[in-house]
Formats: sequence, C-alpha cells, structure tokens
Amino acid sequence: MKVTPLTSPSNPLLKHIRGLQQRSFRDKSRQFLIEGPKVIAEALSAGIEIKDVVISQSYWQSGTIAHELNFNRLSLVEDKLFAELITTESSCGVLAVAHQPAENESSLFASSPALVVIAENIQDPGNLGTIIRTSLAAEASGIILTKGTVDPYNPKVVRSAAGALFKLPLITGLTIDESIKLVKNHQLQVLACCQGASQLYWDANLKLPTALVFGNEGQGFKAETRELCDGEIAIPMSAKSESLNVAMATGIILFAAVQQRRPENQS
Amino acid sequence: MKVTPLTSPSNPLLKHIRGLQQRSFRDKSRQFLIEGPKVIAEALSAGIEIKDVVISQSYWQSGTIAHELNFNRLSLVEDKLFAELITTESSCGVLAVAHQPAENESSLFASSPALVVIAENIQDPGNLGTIIRTSLAAEASGIILTKGTVDPYNPKVVRSAAGALFKLPLITGLTIDESIKLVKNHQLQVLACCQGASQLYWDANLKLPTALVFGNEGQGFKAETRELCDGEIAIPMSAKSESLNVAMATGIILFAAVQQRRPENQS
Repeated sequence: MKVTPLTSPSNPLLKHIRGLQQRSFRDKSRQFLIEGPKVIAEALSAGIEIKDVVISQSYWQSGTIAHELNFNRLSLVEDKLFAELITTESSCGVLAVAHQPAENESSLFASSPALVVIAENIQDPGNLGTIIRTSLAAEASGIILTKGTVDPYNPKVVRSAAGALFKLPLITGLTIDESIKLVKNHQLQVLACCQGASQLYWDANLKLPTALVFGNEGQGFKAETRELCDGEIAIPMSAKSESLNVAMATGIILFAAVQQRRPENQS
Repeated sequence: MKVTPLTSPSNPLLKHIRGLQQRSFRDKSRQFLIEGPKVIAEALSAGIEIKDVVISQSYWQSGTIAHELNFNRLSLVEDKLFAELITTESSCGVLAVAHQPAENESSLFASSPALVVIAENIQDPGNLGTIIRTSLAAEASGIILTKGTVDPYNPKVVRSAAGALFKLPLITGLTIDESIKLVKNHQLQVLACCQGASQLYWDANLKLPTALVFGNEGQGFKAETRELCDGEIAIPMSAKSESLNVAMATGIILFAAVQQRRPENQS
C-alpha cells in the first residue's frame, strides 16, 4: 500500500474534495464524498467505484484502518487539514471520493408488487437519509427524489442513510409531475401522504403496486400535486400533537405496507 | 415590557444559563433551557413556568417577537454573546430559562389501556426527542427514561421533541429493573423490542395495557433485561438492511398499537 502525505491545502485532490461539498460540482463531476470507514465499506461491498481515499494523521496513527479500506493508494493529511474536508464528524478519520452510480428507471420497478417512495421537495438531509434507510429496510422497490429535494449525494444524506443509499434503486431530476406520470405508466396507484386526508393509511390497499408521495417538511404539497394522485392517506394523530416528522411518517406507512404484504396475507 | 441589556459575559443570569447547558446543574437546579420562539410558546401553553427570557440583538431588531413571548421582563444580549448561550441553532434568537415540571408516576397510567414507552439507555438527543414527539402523536400514556438515558431537558432533546416534552407524562431516574417492576405493578405486559425476536410486532396483542421497551442504539439490551420482560417483538427487515433507527422502530410499533386499538376494532 502506498501512502502519499499531502501537506498543501492547495493540493489538487484536496481542492477537488472541497469542491465536492457543493452540489453544483457533484452534479457536474458525478462524484461524491463518503465519510467514515463504515459507510465506505458499505459502498465498496455494494460495488460503488471509489476514486480516492484520504485519511487523517491520527486515524493513521491509531492503526485501526479497516481491512476493507486497504487500498493500493491512500493520501494522508494532517488532522487540521482533514477537518476542512469533512462536513459531518471530523473524528471519522477517513474520507473517500466515489463515482455516483448510474440511474436506471426500470430498476425502480424490478420487484413485484412495486412499492416506490416519491420524496417531493424534502429539504433536510437527515430526513432524506432516514427515508432512504427505512425504505430499504421495508423492501421498497425504489425511491424517486424530485428536483426540489436535497441531493442524495450530500455528505449528510450519505452518512445518515448508513449504506442504504448504495442498495436502493434511486432516480433524481424529475419534477413531481414527471415522477407521478412515470409511476402511473407502470400501473402503480399513487397515494399522497398528508395530514387531514379522510382515508387513514391502514384502510388503503397497499398490496397493490403503489407509489407513496411524501412532501416538504413545512409546506406539504401543492393542490395540483394532490389532484394528480389517485388518493390521499393520513396518519391519525393525538389532538395534542402538531405533526410527525416526515421520515417517521414514511416509516409508519411503509411498514403498514410490509404488514399488509406479509406472506400469510397472500391469497 | 421592560428590556434589560446585558453586556457582560460574567452577568449572573448569563452564567446561570451557560451552567444549564450541563446536566449536573440542570439536575441540581431543576431548571432547563428552551431555545426558539416556537418551543417556548408550546411550553407556555402547556403551563411550564418560565423564569427568564433572553433575546439576541438581531432578533429584537427584526421586530418579530412573538406575541406569546410578551413578558414583563426580557434580557437583551449582543448576537455574539447570545451564540454562547445556545446549543442548537444560534439563529433562533430567543432563549428561555424554565422550571422542570414535577414528575408524577401515576400520570403514566392515567389513560386506559395504558401504552407506556420505556427508553433504556438511549444516547442520542435527536433520537430521544423524536421518540417523545412520536409517543405523543401515537397517544402513548407516558414515557419512562431509565437512568442511563440522555437527559430529556438536554437542549437538543427539548428542541427535537418540538413541544411534546411538555405534554407527555414522563418519569426519569429509575433503573431498567425498577421501570419494569413499576409497569408490572400496574398490570402492563412488558415487551422488549429487539432485532431477531421470533414474534413479529404485528402479531403481538397491543390492545392490552402494554409497556414497550426500546434499548440503546448500538447495544440493544442486556440478557437480564430481556428475561424480565414478558415477551420480545421484532420488526421484520430486508436482508439488505442492517438496522432501523431506534426512534423509527418506536414509531412503527407505537402506530401498530394505534391501528390495533382503533375504534372499529373495539368489541
């Protein structure tokens, strides 16, 4: 293994990494950052192509470098310089530059009956990460992130999705109208999940091929979006409670689908 | 309304506030901090006694001070000084010092059939806040936080619980053994929620008076804790998925109880 110490903040690789903290540069280069040994190992095992790995001095000295990260080529930087490369916890000690995997629309519908999550205009990276992680756990077939939604390759999303980002089919760049059209073309029912809908989620038939639409944390959906959907479902809540977190709402409804689809319910 | 400018970092109130960032001082004084106008308004409407309110210069100048915060006495500090008082987002501009409400064991069992959450050794403030917020939404009767669990009056918990902290009966300071004994004395069944349990959560009878025990993010429970419970339930998960966030698991199981207990299921 070759370890190259990088000492100048203006080193091209370090400049490239700092650039990847910005969405515009991630979109242009189709690369992204993965922070922490655990998520990097998940990426590798999912076949994500890693371009470069940078480790901090103290991580290197600790001797705990994970077997999975035994690359031919590592770059080593001082802790202070490393902290500038990282957007979550600088203590993680290891950072990878990776290529964004290609998107493939048909992969969204590969499992049957399909269960697709449409994340419309979700803003909080932690929420999106949790939605991705939970969608994988609930065996959703895939997730569509509409144009207004936070970038799934934002380092905070990558971290909070905890590896699920690399295993769940994912499409970006469509508007909400295009997203709904796409899933309808594949014969999915489209249900908008929103407070105040008259149908409760457990009364919907989630055994059917289904797309669940979850909206922005504060604003929910536009009326026009709701009209494009086949129906609306709500989670009933205590009158004392103002709202549920959108990631939590996603998990509750996805697992209601898991429950409805359990083997002993198939006939 | 009287507005008192505080300019010295060593002002007794500002020292008191910085002290309240530490659990030991919160425990001793039985006071805590509430950050942001929205959560302060929630606290007031829930009858929490507010002792002092501090606002930042720029918040004061913005003229957006909420009606609910129209106290007789406000302290005003420079933005830079304000930032040192706040542990979450310093942009919130307003901070209150409040008295911790008294705990009352019997309030945990006031609703029938009881549905109590036992949070055992939960470490992440965001997780605990989400568990509290979701428990209120699901009409849980109350929550027990065992001794090892993060302080519910940690400012980050206060913020992420989004007001629910003030509306949900809550008990702290018991060990896990004492917590289980307490709920068993009130004739609740005690179910440990853990990965790998043979019973799935939807097969448990959650219409019965029930306590649900959720364990530490990384370690789960000790074997002795599981032995004290009446049963164990699991959330089935995709083989590709490593785990669910503990707050998410809490929400999924609590809403399964809501679904089982819905009016048309009562006979």
